[in-house]
Formats: sequence, C-alpha cells, structure tokens
Amino acid sequence: MDKSYFRELFRSELVNPVFIEGLPGFGNVGKIAARLLVKSTQAKLFTELYSPFLPDYVMVNREGICRPPRYEFYASSKEKISLIILTGDAQPSVDGITAHYELCGEILDFIERYGCRFIVTLGGLPLPQPAKEVYVAATSQKLAADFVERGALIYGRGRIMGATGLLLGLAKKRRLDGIALLGATRGIRSDHEAGLSVFNFLTKAFEIKVE
Amino acid sequence: MDKSYFRELFRSELVNPVFIEGLPGFGNVGKIAARLLVKSTQAKLFTELYSPFLPDYVMVNREGICRPPRYEFYASSKEKISLIILTGDAQPSVDGITAHYELCGEILDFIERYGCRFIVTLGGLPLPQPAKEVYVAATSQKLAADFVERGALIYGRGRIMGATGLLLGLAKKRRLDGIALLGATRGIRSDHEAGLSVFNFLTKAFEIKVE
Amino acid sequence: MDKSYFRELFRSELVNPVFIEGLPGFGNVGKIAARLLVKSTQAKLFTELYSPFLPDYVMVNREGICRPPRYEFYASSKEKISLIILTGDAQPSVDGITAHYELCGEILDFIERYGCRFIVTLGGLPLPQPAKEVYVAATSQKLAADFVERGALIYGRGRIMGATGLLLGLAKKRRLDGIALLGATRGIRSDHEAGLSVFNFLTKAFEIKVE
Amino acid sequence: MDKSYFRELFRSELVNPVFIEGLPGFGNVGKIAARLLVKSTQAKLFTELYSPFLPDYVMVNREGICRPPRYEFYASSKEKISLIILTGDAQPSVDGITAHYELCGEILDFIERYGCRFIVTLGGLPLPQPAKEVYVAATSQKLAADFVERGALIYGRGRIMGATGLLLGLAKKRRLDGIALLGATRGIRSDHEAGLSVFNFLTKAFEIKVE
Repeated sequence: MDKSYFRELFRSELVNPVFIEGLPGFGNVGKIAARLLVKSTQAKLFTELYSPFLPDYVMVNREGICRPPRYEFYASSKEKISLIILTGDAQPSVDGITAHYELCGEILDFIERYGCRFIVTLGGLPLPQPAKEVYVAATSQKLAADFVERGALIYGRGRIMGATGLLLGLAKKRRLDGIALLGATRGIRSDHEAGLSVFNFLTKAFEIKVE
Repeated sequence: MDKSYFRELFRSELVNPVFIEGLPGFGNVGKIAARLLVKSTQAKLFTELYSPFLPDYVMVNREGICRPPRYEFYASSKEKISLIILTGDAQPSVDGITAHYELCGEILDFIERYGCRFIVTLGGLPLPQPAKEVYVAATSQKLAADFVERGALIYGRGRIMGATGLLLGLAKKRRLDGIALLGATRGIRSDHEAGLSVFNFLTKAFEIKVE
Repeated sequence: MDKSYFRELFRSELVNPVFIEGLPGFGNVGKIAARLLVKSTQAKLFTELYSPFLPDYVMVNREGICRPPRYEFYASSKEKISLIILTGDAQPSVDGITAHYELCGEILDFIERYGCRFIVTLGGLPLPQPAKEVYVAATSQKLAADFVERGALIYGRGRIMGATGLLLGLAKKRRLDGIALLGATRGIRSDHEAGLSVFNFLTKAFEIKVE
Repeated sequence: MDKSYFRELFRSELVNPVFIEGLPGFGNVGKIAARLLVKSTQAKLFTELYSPFLPDYVMVNREGICRPPRYEFYASSKEKISLIILTGDAQPSVDGITAHYELCGEILDFIERYGCRFIVTLGGLPLPQPAKEVYVAATSQKLAADFVERGALIYGRGRIMGATGLLLGLAKKRRLDGIALLGATRGIRSDHEAGLSVFNFLTKAFEIKVE
C-alpha cells in the first residue's frame, strides 16, 4: 500500500455539509468532542480512510479482532445542517511533515466532492491553568469575531499543530471558510471536561440538537 | 536500487498455500518459530526479497562472504497443507512508516499470486512474567474463537507492531483471513523457549507433521 | 498538497533583478536584514510560496487569523537595480534533506524565469565574540575579493547551512554568480544588530538607496 | 534538484577498470586511502556527482569559494590496470536508508557503463586495540581466500555499514565481483596510519606502481 485509500461504505446524501474534524492530539480534546458529536447526532460511519502515513501497527480490540489504524468519516443529515464528522485512531508521525500535508490535501479533496464549503477543526490548547474556556482561530477576521460574540476567546499569536491547524490553513488556500475551536487543557491525559466544553460550544453555536 | 526486488530461485508449485511470517522482533520469537518450521518441514528457499527499505549495511558470514539483508520465502508442499514461510534478517527501520506499508503490500501481492488466502503471523508479546502461553489475534471473531479452543489466549485491547501486525491488518482489507500468534516473552534477548511454544502451538493447530 | 505551490499575486516587471534571500536561521540575521530591505525599498509582495516541505502547523496572528507558513517574494524596481527579495516564516525541518534540495531548486527555477543571474544570500555566522563584522563567501574568487574590498571578511574553511548555503551552491552549478553575506552573531536570540550590519553592508555595496 | 546529477568533465577511456571506493566513515580510513591512491597514481577527476541525498549545506574553502558537497570520480589508466577511484565529502545522513540504496545503485550503473566488473571498497573497522591489520570481506569465498593469502585477515560474522558495505552487497546482486578492505582503527579521529595500511595493502595486492 503506497497510497491513501478511501473505502466508501455507502454513498451519503448530504447538502452543503459542514465538515468537523476531531483527531487525537493535546488532551485528546478534539477526538473526545468529535466522538460526543457522533453519538449525540447519531451520525453514521460512511467512509474509512487507510493510509501509509498512519502508524505501522494494527489495533486489536477486546475480542482479539485486529485492524490497521484509520480515519473515520461520519455523516449526519437529520439536523438543520448536514455534517461530515472526521475522527480517527492516530495522526501521522511527527517526523512525517510531507505526510501531514498530503493527507490533509486528500481529506479536503474528499469533502469538497460532497459540496462542503465550511470546516471546523477541534483540538486542545495546552495551558498551565485551563478553565474550560474555548478559543477560536479562523480563516477571516469576520468569522473570528462571530465566534467571539458567541463566547469564544481569540487565540492570537500562536501556532496550531497537526491536522487541526493544517486542514484550516490549507482550506483557506482553497477559499473555503473555517474555524478552529480549541479547548484549554493541561494536555497530558485525555481531558474529557475540555472535550465536553468544546462539544457544548460547538452544538450551541451551530444550533445542533443534542439527544 | 529504488524498488523492492523479488528474486525467484525456482517456481514453486503450491496449492492454496498458507502463508506463515516470522521476522525479527520482540525476543525474536517469530523468527525462531519460523526457522524451526523451515527445518522441520524441510521447506526449500524459493524466493529472496531485497529492498531499499531494509537496513543499509551488508551482513558478513563466518567465511567473510557478504550480502545485503534480505527476506527469504521458503516453500513446503509435503504436508497436507502447502506452506509459504517468510523469514529474514531485519525489519525496516522504525522511522520508515511508509516503508512498512509498502513492503507489506508487496509481500501480500506476491503471496496472492500463489493463490494464498490465509496468513499466520508469528511474533513475541512482551510481558513481565511470561509463562510460555501463546496469544491470538485474528481478522474475525470466529477465527479468534477457533484458536482459543485450541489453547491460545485472546490478545485483546492492544497493538501489534511491525510486519506481524501490519501484514494481518492489510490482509484483512484484501479480504484474506488470518491470525497472529504471539508468544509471551520478556522480549529483551532471543527467547528460544517462547519461539518453541509458538512453533509447537502452530504445528499442532495446523496438523503439520514434524520430523 | 504534495507539491510546492507558487501563488503569483501579480506579474512583476523586473529587469535582470538581483535575488536576495533572508530566511530564519542563526540569530535570524538573514530574515532581519531582508525585512529591513523590504521596508526601506518599499518592495511589494508579488508571490507567495506554500510547500509540503515547510512545517506542518498554521500560524495565527494577533486577530486570530490563521495561515500555513510560507515564503514571500517581494519585488522592488525603483532602484538602479531591480530586486527580488525572499523572506519567510520557517525553513524545512532539519530532517528533510532532500526537501531542502528540492525547495532550493524550485526557487532558482522561479527566479531564473525573471531573468535573474546574480544571487545574494543573507545569514548569521555563530561566533563566540561577534563584533558586527560581515563575512563573505562566493561562487568565484574574484567575487569574494570584490566584497573584501568593500569591507567584508573572507569566510574560509567552513560550512553554510540550509538555504543560505544551498541556494548559493546550487546557483553556482547553474552558472549563476552569487555571494553569501554572513553577519557575526552569538546566534541564540534574534540579533537585530547583526541584521542591521548585514543590511547596511548590503545597501552600501549595491548602492541601494535607503529611505 | 530532486535527482542525483553526474557531471562528466571529460570522457575517460578506460579498459575494464577496477572500481575503488573510499568515502568518509570510521576513522576516515577509506577516504584517506582513496586520496593517497589518487595522488600516487596521478588519477584525474573526470566526473562529479551532486545529489539531494547528500547533506544540505555548502562547503567553503580557504578562499571563501563555496560548493555543495559532492562525490568525485577519478580515472587512472597509466597502470597495468585501469582504475576508477571514488571519494567525496560526505555520506548520506544515517536516517536516509532508501537514499543509501538509491545512491549506491546509481554509482554501480555509472561504473558498469565504463565496463567495470570488479569493485574494491575501503573503510575502517572500529576495534579497541587496532594494530594496523587489514581485514577483508568478499563477494565469494574464493576471493576472500585470495586476499587472505596476500596478508589480510577474514572479517567474519559482522556488518559493514554504509556505502562500503552496500556497494559490495548490491554489486554482488548484479553478479559483479568485489572485496571490502577494512583497516583496523579506533575510529574516533581521522586515522592516517590505518588509511596508510589499507593503501599499502591495496597497491601491493593489485601491483599498482606508487610514485
């Protein structure tokens, strides 16, 4: 396998979906928030992504069944807005810089084929004294201001690592709009609280009905 | 040399062979078990694999003769079941993530050309107090259960590193079936006992006659 | 994104421009000097370069607006000599050796299309006791001597790391001429003074009018 | 630059040349021996090799003139036997495993075009108590025995790292013959004595007249 492989389980009908990414990272905040969103919207797994850029082990579940690490795309179209939610097992190794660029490009190609024009990336922001606050960075000043009005703080003068940053940056270059929502976290262990804060902010801001 | 190179020494006639992999790894358990199997079945070396993904040194034997590190494929068709046994000198460097994926894909292409539909990967499972037990992970729940009946323990909630894991994971994606047999080992030195446990379990489970 | 991407904002009319590079590096001397040059010549940003060889994060500014790291090409044609000035956010990771070669080759292709035949690379030279001196290395002995006459010291028997060195070395192979100007610096923090020394030497040597 | 580039300065007329490699490595033994050979046979530089696999800096000489690191091929045809001697500034970075394989393959392609069928690689063998002895490893037992008769010791049960090993291993796969001559060295600093031992052994064994 020398290329990424999108395995489409079924063709999802989605109208102008918003793309939401939450992969493992600081405090696993993004992944936790994305998993909560999948559950609460009863989104369906419609595509798996396998890639030589992901780690070279297999994961074994409780029953002893193994599979390579993968990304998962879930579709939800019961809300006022359609959603494509990306979560997954791992990020490319930190050595693999071009890997990150290629994989993010492939993901953006994929969601653009579904007509997606707006992306939200979810992640953690490592802070010494996190207090459940949510930070925003955006592809435009207007967008950043919008989400500050809804209660987020500006994340200014910094960097956003990995897919959470790069998807947004590359989306901007394609003239897509988008924001990153970053939950403050100590960032060492899985931080469920920070994940919940990001999830709550997200569902409220996008008026996603939670079950 | 920028590609892997399969050097076929002779064309082996094999009917639906089972593929068995045992490469260097934790405690060298997989390699030791595979070597025992080659000896006991008098399997013949029929293909060598050289690859730029393998380490960049040559190996020199007792007589001063050198050769690059390689993988070796042995064929055995004297048993009720035909076998292709893979063993070798080294695994790709841990940095080379895409290397692992590419090499495993090339190996699966190769064995599929021989009509192989079932694979068994052999390795070690590092444990603080190993007691000769053999663990199994599989491509399906039924298969895992089958081998638990024959005396293996389920290896649940973990990862299997390198070729032992990735061959199995990528095989599953191609709709091949397979299992990993992991011998418990402290994993630091070559663990002949653990290799022997895996070898014994394997030959008994597959009814391979040992000489 | 698996290739570098030159985003040309407008087509600049330049006659035999001199190419001047100043990217982050030791003491940020090269970048500081290049930025001073952009300001003082009121050079205009005409091309952005995005590349999978650059780091895999996005940069967020004071207002929360994000973008991937990039290189920037500025054009100035108000002087007696036209200038293309390259500066940017980052250099490829130190692991990415082929990355450096490819990126430098792409940059030289780009400037050659503008008719550029002379390049100046700017950087810092880490020394224990820097005293604002500027060192020169060149593609020919005559050029080195020319700039020694103008007050630079020969940088002999050493190495020049990264783009500052490699652009010059690869330019020479294409039969372009060029020099590296290296400001002595302790090299740990951003060294504005050393940047200013290089800038002053450069503008005087090339008779660039400073506003 | 994304490919290696052989810059042929002149076309050398060589009849069945022997290829001799000596690049930087343990104690720089190989490089020192190769340089001595170039001098003593008055061999002429006829080809330079530039490659993105070599380090990403430029080297600056005493006069401040810079150039990228390179490999150099020298031709000598005054002896009874023609020689192609390879030496150079650096080896690919230790991370670049596929780099080593590709570069060695390109070098073997190059020398085969000159009709070369025999190669000699020179290097150092790190030992705690070196005593000027020279070790040999070879592509066949007969060859190894030949050079033991001439005074070398067998280098058995070990590895030969980098180009010194890999050139020999890949040459063997192409059905070329060859030997590695390894000078015992502490291996930390440049070891002129060990280089001289290898040079003396080499010139005597191949009856190369030394000036």
